[in-house]
This record gives sequence, C-alpha cells and structure tokens, in this order.
Amino acid sequence: MVEKPDVGELTPPDRTLMGPGPSEVHPRVLRAMSTPLVGHLDPSFVEIMNEVQDLLRYTFRTDNQWTIPVSGTGSASMEAAIGNIVEPGDTMLVPTNGYFGGRMESMAERAGGEVVHVDAPWGEPLDPADVADAFDEHQPDVFGFVHAETSTGALQPNVSELTDVAHEHDALVIADTVTSLGGVELKVDEWGIDAAYSGPQKCLSCPPGASPLTLNDRAMDKVLSREEPARSWYLDLSLLEGYWGDERAYHHTAPITNVYAIREALRLVAEEGIENRWERHLSMAGALKSGVEAMGLEMNAADDYWLPSLNAVRVPDGVTDTDVTGYLLDQYDLEIATGLGDLDGDIFRIGCMGYSARAETVSYLLGALGDALSSQGADVDVEAGLAATAAKLGER
Amino acid sequence: MVEKPDVGELTPPDRTLMGPGPSEVHPRVLRAMSTPLVGHLDPSFVEIMNEVQDLLRYTFRTDNQWTIPVSGTGSASMEAAIGNIVEPGDTMLVPTNGYFGGRMESMAERAGGEVVHVDAPWGEPLDPADVADAFDEHQPDVFGFVHAETSTGALQPNVSELTDVAHEHDALVIADTVTSLGGVELKVDEWGIDAAYSGPQKCLSCPPGASPLTLNDRAMDKVLSREEPARSWYLDLSLLEGYWGDERAYHHTAPITNVYAIREALRLVAEEGIENRWERHLSMAGALKSGVEAMGLEMNAADDYWLPSLNAVRVPDGVTDTDVTGYLLDQYDLEIATGLGDLDGDIFRIGCMGYSARAETVSYLLGALGDALSSQGADVDVEAGLAATAAKLGER
Repeated sequence: MVEKPDVGELTPPDRTLMGPGPSEVHPRVLRAMSTPLVGHLDPSFVEIMNEVQDLLRYTFRTDNQWTIPVSGTGSASMEAAIGNIVEPGDTMLVPTNGYFGGRMESMAERAGGEVVHVDAPWGEPLDPADVADAFDEHQPDVFGFVHAETSTGALQPNVSELTDVAHEHDALVIADTVTSLGGVELKVDEWGIDAAYSGPQKCLSCPPGASPLTLNDRAMDKVLSREEPARSWYLDLSLLEGYWGDERAYHHTAPITNVYAIREALRLVAEEGIENRWERHLSMAGALKSGVEAMGLEMNAADDYWLPSLNAVRVPDGVTDTDVTGYLLDQYDLEIATGLGDLDGDIFRIGCMGYSARAETVSYLLGALGDALSSQGADVDVEAGLAATAAKLGER
Repeated sequence: MVEKPDVGELTPPDRTLMGPGPSEVHPRVLRAMSTPLVGHLDPSFVEIMNEVQDLLRYTFRTDNQWTIPVSGTGSASMEAAIGNIVEPGDTMLVPTNGYFGGRMESMAERAGGEVVHVDAPWGEPLDPADVADAFDEHQPDVFGFVHAETSTGALQPNVSELTDVAHEHDALVIADTVTSLGGVELKVDEWGIDAAYSGPQKCLSCPPGASPLTLNDRAMDKVLSREEPARSWYLDLSLLEGYWGDERAYHHTAPITNVYAIREALRLVAEEGIENRWERHLSMAGALKSGVEAMGLEMNAADDYWLPSLNAVRVPDGVTDTDVTGYLLDQYDLEIATGLGDLDGDIFRIGCMGYSARAETVSYLLGALGDALSSQGADVDVEAGLAATAAKLGER
C-alpha cells in the first residue's frame, strides 16, 4: 500500500537569483500565471497565440512567419531546431568552445546527423577564419553556434561574418540565443540567422516552460521537405505548423499558463523597448563588472567578447568556489553558480539578466560577494569594489 | 524594421471548462504559480522535487522509484515513455480503438520500432482475447493501451487481464492514463502496469507543463540497457535519471513554476484522499450522465466501460455539433468539445475532471446544454434532465 505523503504548504526561500538562470521573475509575470485558464483551442487563446508570436518577432528582430514558443524549457526549443533541421545523412558543424556546443552535438547525432567541429578553447569566441576552414574541409549542411555561452560568459561577436561563410557554402545557420534574447543585441534577420532558439528564464525573466524559436522560410522549407519525419513527434515542426499556423488544428495541449507568462514577459520587453533593454543590461552588468574588477578579481572573458548577461569571474587563488556559493546561499539567500566542464572550479558565473539586471540586485551582489570572498580568506578590496559599482550606477 | 506590437493587458474570458482538458484549475494551484522562483539546483528545490515524486507515487498507486514529472505537456511524457522503452528493432502492439492509439503508433515508429495493431472499433474497449491473439501472432516486445480514451469516452476495464497476457509473453506494458490519473480508479502496481504516463490538466486540474510518468524497475532496466541512446536528448530518461535520481545533476532547467503547481495539485489529491477522489468523479459524472440520459440523449459508451472523467454523448438527430459548442461558448462561456477522428460529428465530449467535477459546474452544464440543444431544434426534455441531475446531486 502506498502511503499518503505528508507535504506542507509551498514555502520556498526568498532567493535573489543572480546565477545563469532562472533569473528573477517580474511581479507582473508572476501575477499573469495565476490567471484562470481557457482551452488551448479557444478563440481567445488563438488571439493570445498571435500576440505572443508578434511579440517574439519584435524581440528576435525578425519578420519570420514561423516564430513560436515551444512547449518545454530551453532545451526543448534547442532540440526542436536541431532535430527538425538536421536529417539523417546531414553533416552539422558545431562549436567546441563551451558546454552548449556539446549539447548541440548530442542532439544532432540523435537526429541522425554526422557531427564535425569548429575548434576554439572554452571561453573564447569562434574565429570566422576557423569557421571558413572547417567549411572548406567538411562542407557541412548545417552550422550551429552559440551566440551567448552561458557556461563561459563569452559573447560571439561578428555574427554576420559567420553566417556569411555558412551561406557561401549553402548551409543553414542555427544560433543558440538562450542567454542573449531580450538582453544582448541580437538581430536575427539583419545578421542572416536562419534559425534561433532561446529560453524564457534568462533575459526575458519568465519562468521556464515555453521557449522561443524562430525559423526563416529557407529553414522551414528544409523542415517541410524532409524525407522522413523528425524523430520526435512532440517537437515535430511540420505538425506544430498545423497548430501555430493558419489552421490552428489540435496537435498537443499547449502549456497555457506558460504562454500567458511569456506574453506578459514579452510585453514588458516591448514597453521598455528592445534597444533600451540591451542598454540596461550593458549598464547594469557594466556596474557589476567594474565592481568585481575594482575588488581585484579578473573576468574570464576579454572585454571584446564579454557577455553582459553572464559574467564569468575567475575564482581567486586560495578560494574554493563552492564554499563561496554555499556561503552566499546560506548567508544572503543569493544564488550565483560555479563553472561547468573545462571551467569547473575556475569561475563564478554571475547572471545579470532581465528583472535581475537592476541596481538593487547588482549592489546587493557586490557587497555579498565581497563578504563571502573575504570570509574565505581571499585578498579582495571590497570597499573599492563597492565604490566602483556605486559610481557606475550613479552615472545612469 | 520589426515594429513594436501593441498588445494590451491579459484579459481572457472567464470560461467554465467542461471539455476534454484543460479542466478548471483550483485557486490554490493558481496561487502556487505566482510563487517567486528558486533555482532548479537549489537545495530547497531538490526537497520540492522529492515531495512531488512522493505525491505522484501516492496518486499512481505505485512504489516505483522512477516516478517524475516530465518537463512538457502530456504528449511529452507519452513520448518519453514510448521513445525510451521502444528501441529500433522492437515491435510495439498498439490499439486502434481511439485517437491516442494512433499517436502511440506514430511515436513508436519515430523511435525506430515496428508497429502492429490490436483491433477494436473506436469507442469500444480492447478484448483480452484479441490482445492474446495479437500477441500470439506478432510476439511484440512492448504493448501499449489507453486506460481512458479522451477521444471516445471509453474506459478500459480488466486491465490486469491485459497485463497478464503481455507478461506471459515477456513484454512490457505502457499505459496511457492521461484522463484517468487522479479521477478514475487506477492502480499501477496492483494491475501490473510497467510504465504509465499522464497529463496534469485533466483530473489533476493543474495547468499543463509538467506531466506525470512512472516506470517500474523492469521498464527502467530496459531503458538503461539500450544499445543506442534514445532519439530525443530532451526526453532521454537515462540522462533525466541524473537529475531526478540521487545525483541531482544538471540536465536541463526544470519548469520550476509548473513543478510548484503540480505539487499543490497533488497535495489537494492527498488531502481529499485518492479513493474519495475517484468516488467524487463517479458521483459527479453520474449526476451528469443521469441528466443527459433523462433529457433523451444517448451516451456513446455502454455502461460497462463508461468513463466518468470524459462523457461522450451522441449528437441528437438534426443537430450540428459545432453549432451547439459555439452556442455554449458564446452564450454561457462554457467549453465542451466535439468528436475526433472516426467519431467526428457524432459525439459531444463533456469532461468531468478534477476541480471541474463539482455540483456547480455539473448543474450549470446541464441547463446550458439543454438550452443549446433546444435552440438548435433538438427534441430534448430539459426539465427531466435537470430533475434527474438534481436528484443525483441531492443523494450525496
């Protein structure tokens, strides 16, 4: 006999979220999630779907008809992109410069593709010349890159140079924009990106569960002319086209509340204005970066490819990363993260995303981090750090 | 240039949801969804994950260690079950007696399996003798059946007889319990079901987005000893085992708010008591059924396999189904559904699930349906229907 569990009221701790995501959720988005549901085929929900698609196009800077929230968290929209575009027999070129390149590889292989690499060390961007060499050597059908590497805090500059190389070789480009969409300059159409996916819980500050995806006609043509169906029914874009396209036919039950939430989160993006939002992330993360540098810490990424939404800070000598993150959680209810993969133990990952990218949280982070590092015996100048951050915040 | 869309406040209509799902969500579950987030690796979230797993075991009536909410809507947990258990070269026996048997077939084929059928007309349950014959003829490795067919309103009785046949042939049994979990008697362990999946937006009355799945050790052993990985990275249970098992290692960002929601929805199940909940569904749907029958309408399913959570009512002569559903939506803000597939145009599908299975909604439905049918010229005895329902509701 299965016994009845004794589970009490939901009372999670009140965290300040400055890790790699989820970021803090705007109160208006939380409120939208308590809205009673309508059915997923209700005429009023069809209208809401249209609005979400328009708002996503605005945020992605694209006119792509085929722009939707995928019914799952960011990895679902990632697999929807890769699993539909990559067909058995295709070759996909993926990056080696961070954790999420490895995930692209795994998804492409499961889709039946062959994988080749464009090499770059973890934490550095891809060099267009290396991409061109890899294209010449392997002639891939699909090229994937990560615009904003959550695992390393590196931003890929020169996106158009990469897409130019790919298009000269008649390949499709898939961009991972999980940690850039809505926080860092991203122009899907102008930059020639054929497909981009993202997550809601980063710079959009929306709970995970419905994840942005956009494909241009060229990418969608490939999907719709596949010889065999995509290997996932749930993520099959040719079937989802029936639901999100003109027909509005039943495929699966959409996560209605998550669609409500992303609608509100994207409304906040539109109200602020996308360029203003990019500027806010730059300014808030700039204050954070100035502070940690003035404290005597080192950023992992060079300034040329610093990623404002995810600040990778080198762990100072003599300090154990997890002691610091544990101290911050226990003493300050503050979440930041440690490194992953090749950078495990070497960096802290400090998010500055969406609703978490504001003066209150940045100030709080600086003081807390200074205390945590000092308590662990690190040689940091907390006062200088706080002063530098305060000065930057005052400049706004 | 992509223009800024003009999207106003979220103000969906206030619907009464008596369709095939989503059902109405309990106010406590809606409130839980406005709870601020913690990180998906936060120690407090790990505790919440444990609680959800315990509550799911209680609701499924199972001791299965491997019991989780899948990060997606019901079709995601369905594909997680089929896509992990079915390997290339396996044969899966699927039913033909409703829409969701067809979906099982499509998922099994995409997983690389061969599909054979056990035949039964739409709207009728499977006969154990037919299942035994199909086993003798095809020797399948996996057998799938739908416990509660949302498309036809038919309940599969005699589940143990089906699982006995399968186990005599050393096959694994996957049960679709989307429209039974938490509303209709279901005993995973006692009935010998090896894997069962469900959706949260039916009898659990929780918004879609995190979907119940349970596998016993025998099923999980097959998953963990696959020769090639599952074809979806997102739904790969051998990787999810790292996150939901003892290790609690990062796989993907869980849909935190949806986990909060299902926790609260399952707490309501435990508070009510699972047997009491089954009884409530029987009693409320019984009042509904008495009313529609007294009105002169006919149920599509015989009493032996009537499904209380989804009442399929024959469309009376001279009436167009969509005229009635449209009238109910326009005049009463009330959602019921029409038929699917083989039963398209022949039935209304009236849900009686979770928080929608209560006296207020059942009474409201009866009156509204009577008015809608009368307005379309159907020969129905509305007074008799209302009286029969009221009498049943008074008996409680």
